Amino acid sequence: MSTSTIGAESLFISACYCKPTQRTPIWIMRQAGRYLPEYRKIRSQVDFLSLTKTPELAAEVTLQPVRRFEMDAAILFSDIMTPVEGMGVEMEFSPGPVIKNPLRTAEQIEELRIPESGENAPFVAETIRIIDRELPSSVPLIGFAGAPFTLFCYLVEGGGSKTFSQAKSFLFAEPRLSRIILEKLTEVMIGYLEAQVQAGAKALMIFDSWVGLLADTDYKAFAYPSVCRIIESLDHLDVPLIYFPNQGATLLGTVKNCGADVVGVDWRTSLSVARNVLGPDIAVQGNLDPMALFASKEDLESRIDDVLREAGEEAGHIFNLGHGIDKNTDPDRVAFLVDRVRERSQRNL
Amino acid sequence: MSTSTIGAESLFISACYCKPTQRTPIWIMRQAGRYLPEYRKIRSQVDFLSLTKTPELAAEVTLQPVRRFEMDAAILFSDIMTPVEGMGVEMEFSPGPVIKNPLRTAEQIEELRIPESGENAPFVAETIRIIDRELPSSVPLIGFAGAPFTLFCYLVEGGGSKTFSQAKSFLFAEPRLSRIILEKLTEVMIGYLEAQVQAGAKALMIFDSWVGLLADTDYKAFAYPSVCRIIESLDHLDVPLIYFPNQGATLLGTVKNCGADVVGVDWRTSLSVARNVLGPDIAVQGNLDPMALFASKEDLESRIDDVLREAGEEAGHIFNLGHGIDKNTDPDRVAFLVDRVRERSQRNL
Repeated sequence: MSTSTIGAESLFISACYCKPTQRTPIWIMRQAGRYLPEYRKIRSQVDFLSLTKTPELAAEVTLQPVRRFEMDAAILFSDIMTPVEGMGVEMEFSPGPVIKNPLRTAEQIEELRIPESGENAPFVAETIRIIDRELPSSVPLIGFAGAPFTLFCYLVEGGGSKTFSQAKSFLFAEPRLSRIILEKLTEVMIGYLEAQVQAGAKALMIFDSWVGLLADTDYKAFAYPSVCRIIESLDHLDVPLIYFPNQGATLLGTVKNCGADVVGVDWRTSLSVARNVLGPDIAVQGNLDPMALFASKEDLESRIDDVLREAGEEAGHIFNLGHGIDKNTDPDRVAFLVDRVRERSQRNL
Repeated sequence: MSTSTIGAESLFISACYCKPTQRTPIWIMRQAGRYLPEYRKIRSQVDFLSLTKTPELAAEVTLQPVRRFEMDAAILFSDIMTPVEGMGVEMEFSPGPVIKNPLRTAEQIEELRIPESGENAPFVAETIRIIDRELPSSVPLIGFAGAPFTLFCYLVEGGGSKTFSQAKSFLFAEPRLSRIILEKLTEVMIGYLEAQVQAGAKALMIFDSWVGLLADTDYKAFAYPSVCRIIESLDHLDVPLIYFPNQGATLLGTVKNCGADVVGVDWRTSLSVARNVLGPDIAVQGNLDPMALFASKEDLESRIDDVLREAGEEAGHIFNLGHGIDKNTDPDRVAFLVDRVRERSQRNL
């Protein structure tokens, strides 16, 4: 690990709490992944699910992008479906999650187990302990979980989908059963996230990848309460909490009150608009379009500068993409991005 | 055809132009489709592509939902990819469009033909002429086309996709070539839409199904100019123009100026918010979540009333779903919806 990040003590954590920083911290969603040759090398020897369950390897791929780019935060290499297996749900990855028996009946829902916090996916805690030993203290590790509504979508639909029409029709046709699923998921995610902090995670992120399927009224009725409950339950852990309502442009007025320290913003909503809605006490994380990394360097530069300008001069911005990095991205473009953000966001404190 | 719609002369057209109407007109995106047993009966004998190209059958399925529900408008049964075949693009449907040779090179783009307006998909004009003879005068036929950016997405990606990452990376990596594709598509769509009006279409709708992939700056750079050009070029036809920027919550401030008489709104943006952005001179069309048709009748009722309330008392609302109807929808729920909208939107003029 280079020493150049030493001294930039917890830039990321400071930004999460809207404290002024000498420059804008940066990390990238899905920074440990297929666009990196060193990741593909490991994946050529082990399948995705085994990789997430082998602490030494999961720790190694978590550290790869931090070493290569000197990112300001690491994020646990895992999958949002990982803690759901502990509830008794059988699945495989090909490449996205495929649920063997999609949830559709009261019996199936009744049978969903709520494992003890420490028992659920213990390999994740072990992974985090390894990472915690390896990471410099200036680079915090972000633990994460899927938001209950997003997990609900996969569990009821049976896998990924463009419209999640099975999951949504179930949600509307069976609101009572849906709430039971959502409540069980909420309880499990609270324990799962707690265990990550106990193992050494320094921040937590909740991914609500599919919440853009909901109008604000349905968000308030079904998805938002579970997010609030998770955040409230984790408040005592004293780590920053990031909530990412993907494609949530029309939900931000509600999201504002969920209690998160940081709100992740996809590329569709400009950061200045997000800041206006969220107010000065919530940090924003985002939001370069991941596909901007395929543009010419000149174009990419101006897009990076646009994101910094939209974020404004105030504290409380963590640079990131507006969604996960594409697997065909050139890693050199990521290095270029990181350098540009470092250079352009210097502040005199 | 029942005579009960006679006398409600062009409720739909009046609403498009923001003129007061006795009640809110209603039609439903994808109203001619798989949720109807009479449609499935025809489809059991003919594949999708042949159905779109056989005027008698395409006219018949266009008329089916108008007969069954007494909808206030008919919409041509066709596919947004239909006019693209005339440009020399080979495709099949399984069930969505699959492009044999996705556009990636300057040579391929150079070879895209611009057919004469009347020559392109002549079976569509014939379909419209049949429908025009069969429909009562109070029920206008809506012709349609895909917006150039949305067609670009399919042509470059090679088919449907959750992220259209090939199409978007091409857009950003090759903006010059992308603009050539978009301009050719624009020219072809203008001729195609003109031909529909000449054949008897009484309104036109432009579907920008994938424009929600773009941030507003990229929308302005790539998608919006072609929409404006189409609308401007069709102004002389003197039929209402509806533009549907699907998932375009963050684009409405730009969409406002595109020249459309009506803007379609998906279910994520409330109609009151859309009206506030679009102003009093643009009608809105939408926006019940299609999945609301799976809710209990009580819940569906209250959701319908919510849409009407959000649309407000002013003129210029066409009731519709916020996206195409799901194939598993119960037709009786559609009848219930149509009745409820009729009953609840009565006005004393």
